[in-house]
Amino acid sequence: MSIDESDIPALARGCAILGTGGGGDVRAGSLAAVRAIRAYGEVPLVDLADLPGDALVVPLSGIGAPTVGHEMIHGEDEPKRVAEEVERLFGRPPSAIMSSEIGGSNGVAPVAWAARLGVPLLDADGMGRAFPEVQMVSMYVAGLPADLVIMSDIVGNVVTIRPIDGLWSERLARAVCVAAGSHALMADYVLTAGRARGAVIEGTVTRAIGIGRATEGAVDPLGALRDRLGAVRLITGKLTDVDRRTTGGFVRGTATIEGTGDDRGRRLTVELQNENLIAVEDGAVRAMVPDLITVVDTETAAAVQTESLRYGQRVSVLAWPCDPLWRTPKGLETAGPRAFGYDHDYVPVEELTAHG
Amino acid sequence: MSIDESDIPALARGCAILGTGGGGDVRAGSLAAVRAIRAYGEVPLVDLADLPGDALVVPLSGIGAPTVGHEMIHGEDEPKRVAEEVERLFGRPPSAIMSSEIGGSNGVAPVAWAARLGVPLLDADGMGRAFPEVQMVSMYVAGLPADLVIMSDIVGNVVTIRPIDGLWSERLARAVCVAAGSHALMADYVLTAGRARGAVIEGTVTRAIGIGRATEGAVDPLGALRDRLGAVRLITGKLTDVDRRTTGGFVRGTATIEGTGDDRGRRLTVELQNENLIAVEDGAVRAMVPDLITVVDTETAAAVQTESLRYGQRVSVLAWPCDPLWRTPKGLETAGPRAFGYDHDYVPVEELTAHG
Repeated sequence: MSIDESDIPALARGCAILGTGGGGDVRAGSLAAVRAIRAYGEVPLVDLADLPGDALVVPLSGIGAPTVGHEMIHGEDEPKRVAEEVERLFGRPPSAIMSSEIGGSNGVAPVAWAARLGVPLLDADGMGRAFPEVQMVSMYVAGLPADLVIMSDIVGNVVTIRPIDGLWSERLARAVCVAAGSHALMADYVLTAGRARGAVIEGTVTRAIGIGRATEGAVDPLGALRDRLGAVRLITGKLTDVDRRTTGGFVRGTATIEGTGDDRGRRLTVELQNENLIAVEDGAVRAMVPDLITVVDTETAAAVQTESLRYGQRVSVLAWPCDPLWRTPKGLETAGPRAFGYDHDYVPVEELTAHG
Repeated sequence: MSIDESDIPALARGCAILGTGGGGDVRAGSLAAVRAIRAYGEVPLVDLADLPGDALVVPLSGIGAPTVGHEMIHGEDEPKRVAEEVERLFGRPPSAIMSSEIGGSNGVAPVAWAARLGVPLLDADGMGRAFPEVQMVSMYVAGLPADLVIMSDIVGNVVTIRPIDGLWSERLARAVCVAAGSHALMADYVLTAGRARGAVIEGTVTRAIGIGRATEGAVDPLGALRDRLGAVRLITGKLTDVDRRTTGGFVRGTATIEGTGDDRGRRLTVELQNENLIAVEDGAVRAMVPDLITVVDTETAAAVQTESLRYGQRVSVLAWPCDPLWRTPKGLETAGPRAFGYDHDYVPVEELTAHG
C-alpha cells in the first residue's frame, strides 16, 4: 500500500481525532505532506513484518510549537540531516521512518519526511495518540533505553543527545529546541525492526486514515466516528467556559461543556495539558489519561484542538480506550494520571462509563 | 616534561593572571588537578611537534558557572564520556587533551582530565587567556569550521552538537549547559595534531607556570610579574567603586580604581564582562580587549577575580599584549572591542600606553 495525495485529508482528520486536542495543527503536517508527495511521489506504507530484522527504523517528530509556516519550511533539509547523522552513527541509512506520535501534526508530517528521504513509512507509531513529553513513547514503556536523540533544526544545526534516561532526554531536547528557535525535527530512538517489535504501536497510520474516512459522506458523522473508535459519547452540548494558559511551554487549562438536548442539565469539565487529560462530571471522573478524550464538532465530528476551543461552540466529547501498552504498570507510570500530577488511580474508561 | 603536584600552585597563579578577572575560580581547577595527580600520577606535557599529524587532540573546558564543589565532582567520569564519544565518532581515542582556555580554572583543570584519561596534556590552548564565549577560540580564528561540540554533564548525559557556525555552537552549548544544571565539560572541536598547527596558541601551559613562578619568593612581586608578562602598570591604587550585575549568564560591570602614592589624583575604570575588557582613564582608553588587563593585589601580585573585587582593596592594574592571532582581522572580528559592543577601533596596548 502507498499513501498518495488523496489519502492526506483522511489521514489528517484521523490524526486530529487521535490528537485528543493536542499534537499540533494537522493543517501544517498536511501541507508539508501534499507538497512532498507532489514533488517526490507517493509514499510506500510498510508493516514491521515487511522489514528485515536489522533494518533501521527512525521515529521522527516535530518538537516545539509548530505553526503552518514552520511545518512548511520544516521538511526540506531537516530529515536529510537526521538521516545523515543516523548513517554516520550506524553505518547504514534508515530503511523506514515512523511517526513518533500519530496524534496531531506529527502523524501527518512523516509522510512528507519519508517522501523527501525516498524511504517507506512504517505503519506504526510510538503513542497511538498524542502526548506532551518526549519520554511518553511506547519504546520507553517497552523498556528500550532512551539512549539516543538526534535533532535537526531549520538553520542546519544537528544535535545528538545520549541521555541517561527518558526524563533527561525530554529536558535536554526541550532546551535545544528552545535555543534552536522553538522548533526542531527529532528522532528519539533509532530502532532496528527487530527491536521495534512489541515496542511500537502497529497499524496506527492505517487506523488514522480509517478514522478519517469514517465520517466522509456519513449521514451521522458523530455516530460513525463513535462506532469507528469504539468510543463513549460523554456529553453533547455547548462550550461555556474555556480557561487556557501557557506555562512552562505547555498549554494548560480546562474546558467546560454544558449539555444540550438529551444532555440538558449536565455539565462536563475537561482538564488539559496540550492534550485532554481528564473528564469530570459532578465531581466524578468519567475518563482519564492515557485513555483518549477528544472534543469534536457535533455536526461534522471534526476534532476541535485545544487552541481552537471557543465559547459557544456546539461540541461533543468522545472517550475511548488507549492501546493496552499504556495500561501496563510501566505505561501508567509513564503517562497515567499521576504522571500528570493527578491524585487518581487509573480506571479504564469502559469501567468509568459502564453505568453512565 | 611532566606536571606534578608541586607545579599546580604556580600553574594556578599563572592561569589566574591570564584569566583577566574571569575564567572561573582557579582553586576549583587546582583541587581537581591535585586530587587526580595523587590518584593517577603526574601528567606528561607535550608539544604539538611531539605528536604525529593524525593524533587526535581534544580541547576541553568547563562551561557554565564553576564552583569548587562542581569542579571536584567534575573530572570523575565526564572526561571519560567525552573521550568515548570521540572514539565512537573518529574510530580512535584522544592522543592528548588541551585546555581550550588557559585563563582561569579551565587552564588548571585539564591537568585533572588528562590524568584521569591517562593521556598527555598539550602545551597549548585555544585563547592564550580567557574569553566569555565558546566561539572566541584560536581554532575559529584560524578558520577551522566550528563543526563539532561534545558535552558531558555530571549526571552522565552526553550531547554532540554539529553547529552551522561558531555562534550557533555558543548558543546551543549554552542551552544544553543550562539544562544540564549550569555546568558541563565541553570539547569544542576535535583536532588532528596536523590541523592544530597554527590554529592553537602554543606554549601557554609552560607560560602560565612561568608566570606563577615569577612571583614566588620575589622581593617585589608586582615588578617581577610585570617584567615576566611584559606588561604596563596602568595604575596602583584603591578600589573605590565596584558595580557588578549578572545578566544573560554573564557578569557585567565596572571597577573604579583611584590612584595612591605616585598615582594620587588619577582614576582608572575597568569595564568587564566576566573578563576585564577595557580600561579607561579621563575618557581615554588605555587598554582594550583582546589585550589582557588584569587587576592584581599590589602586595602579592596575585590576580583579583571579577567576583572578588571589593571596595577598599589595594590593587594594581596590569595590561599586556595578546597573542598576535587575536590582532588579525578575523581575531579582532571575533574578540575585538566591537565583538563586545564597544564602538572603538582596536589599538594595541603598546601604542595606547607609549606616552602614558
